[in-house]
Amino acid sequence: MEILLAKSAGFCFGVKRATQIAFEASSEYEHICSLGPIIHSPQVVQKLAEKGVGVVEEVEAIPEGAVIIRSHGVTANEMRALQARGLTVVDATCPFVNKAQEYAARLAAEGYTVVIVGETEHPEVQGIVSYANGGKVQVVANAAEAAHLPRMVRVGIVAQTTQSFENLQQVVGICLAKCQELHVFNTICDATTVRQNEARDIAGQVDVMLVIGGFNSANTTRLAQICREIQPATHHLETVEEVQGSWFNGVERIGITAGASTPRWLIEEVVNRVTELIHPGEK
Amino acid sequence: MEILLAKSAGFCFGVKRATQIAFEASSEYEHICSLGPIIHSPQVVQKLAEKGVGVVEEVEAIPEGAVIIRSHGVTANEMRALQARGLTVVDATCPFVNKAQEYAARLAAEGYTVVIVGETEHPEVQGIVSYANGGKVQVVANAAEAAHLPRMVRVGIVAQTTQSFENLQQVVGICLAKCQELHVFNTICDATTVRQNEARDIAGQVDVMLVIGGFNSANTTRLAQICREIQPATHHLETVEEVQGSWFNGVERIGITAGASTPRWLIEEVVNRVTELIHPGEK
Repeated sequence: MEILLAKSAGFCFGVKRATQIAFEASSEYEHICSLGPIIHSPQVVQKLAEKGVGVVEEVEAIPEGAVIIRSHGVTANEMRALQARGLTVVDATCPFVNKAQEYAARLAAEGYTVVIVGETEHPEVQGIVSYANGGKVQVVANAAEAAHLPRMVRVGIVAQTTQSFENLQQVVGICLAKCQELHVFNTICDATTVRQNEARDIAGQVDVMLVIGGFNSANTTRLAQICREIQPATHHLETVEEVQGSWFNGVERIGITAGASTPRWLIEEVVNRVTELIHPGEK
Repeated sequence: MEILLAKSAGFCFGVKRATQIAFEASSEYEHICSLGPIIHSPQVVQKLAEKGVGVVEEVEAIPEGAVIIRSHGVTANEMRALQARGLTVVDATCPFVNKAQEYAARLAAEGYTVVIVGETEHPEVQGIVSYANGGKVQVVANAAEAAHLPRMVRVGIVAQTTQSFENLQQVVGICLAKCQELHVFNTICDATTVRQNEARDIAGQVDVMLVIGGFNSANTTRLAQICREIQPATHHLETVEEVQGSWFNGVERIGITAGASTPRWLIEEVVNRVTELIHPGEK
């Protein structure tokens, strides 16, 4: 039996950076918390809690000291409220998310109707929306939703950084039919596409596929969906405890990948556990 | 038997305007010519010649006096050369073509690689290209050609005014995959789309279809192609003399449309001739 581990499994650039910033800040500040879970990995959030970095859901609930802004970013209002309260802001917003916020603000300032391609409820999207405010803003999940947009004169488009390129492309095609001028910033981070493509490739070669990552992580859930379309024997798991020996009965090849917010040590634990199960005593 | 005449047959806004300007100018100036045929209708060009407006192909060949710029526009170099020679310029460039030239110039000045969707050899496209010069310019006819473009950082797109929207949409989709920032001005004139859609509609209801317009007119030739795909019994004709009685044997319904540079009187001549042929003595 053989394990195929995706090279692109685990932390993307922005998550790695945010986690590093958070761990460094945990020793630097006596009173520190993060506004919302720093990344969508309950295990990393737990480790940070052990270092004294609690999670606070609202600006008003922050007691004192420093506050970490997670990789998804915050809304412009939240940023102003943090500053107004005189808190020390440790900004771990992913630089790619920052770019999307900046482009949305610029397009709104230039008078475009800003169309954001993404999930309305996602904190990253809510942050981007807030920077385009003052202007007209529309959030659409896909081409079907874009088809319901009214006619507009000048349309500016940015995307949630984890969107698929095909989705952005389809929305752009629909919006082009609804306006005279279209200004698009492709703010999609390649890491998602690279990870999804590698997952597809591996899922097509194996008898069982494991996708490791938070059940609250949108990108991990999407990754598991993509793999399941190719290999129905796909398991989405958060921790090593969930690995079941029965998954590997009669199996030749095992694929493993992980979402953007899954730490390396969690992936290694799963790889080690699977290795023990399929080659007992070899470790 | 019945004739279905397209409402959108004949002169578009820009051609109508250019022709009016040319006829007015013919009585205003003693020495006047047009740089290239004013529109792609040999019959209109002939009528203007009778009014003393000859066709000159090169700036250097203009003897003196006034020169009419046709609806397709001229290149920036030609415009400079006309002004340098001290000629009176009567500008009949279609305002929609002017817009495309302005947007191309603006995108080039802002540092975009300018992609022009259109036919490289068409005078309108050559004019638009000239206004984007100084920057990087690419002309692509369709998505297949766009696929060969290199990776670019910032792409600005304009279209030849008579392109189909679907073609622009496909090129935009391809270019989006090749850059970070995409700025599109939809410079397509609706008249072409409206005329083509009505022609499709009529061609589907008739037994024979007549498309009137210059054999050198790209939009008329395209209109005839579109009709022929739906009704193989489609005839592209330039003048009433080409109408053949045999076309109407056993025919119930006859469709008639005309290109953007076909004058009203030419359409009426054909309608009258067809009416005589199918209802002899009724006129």
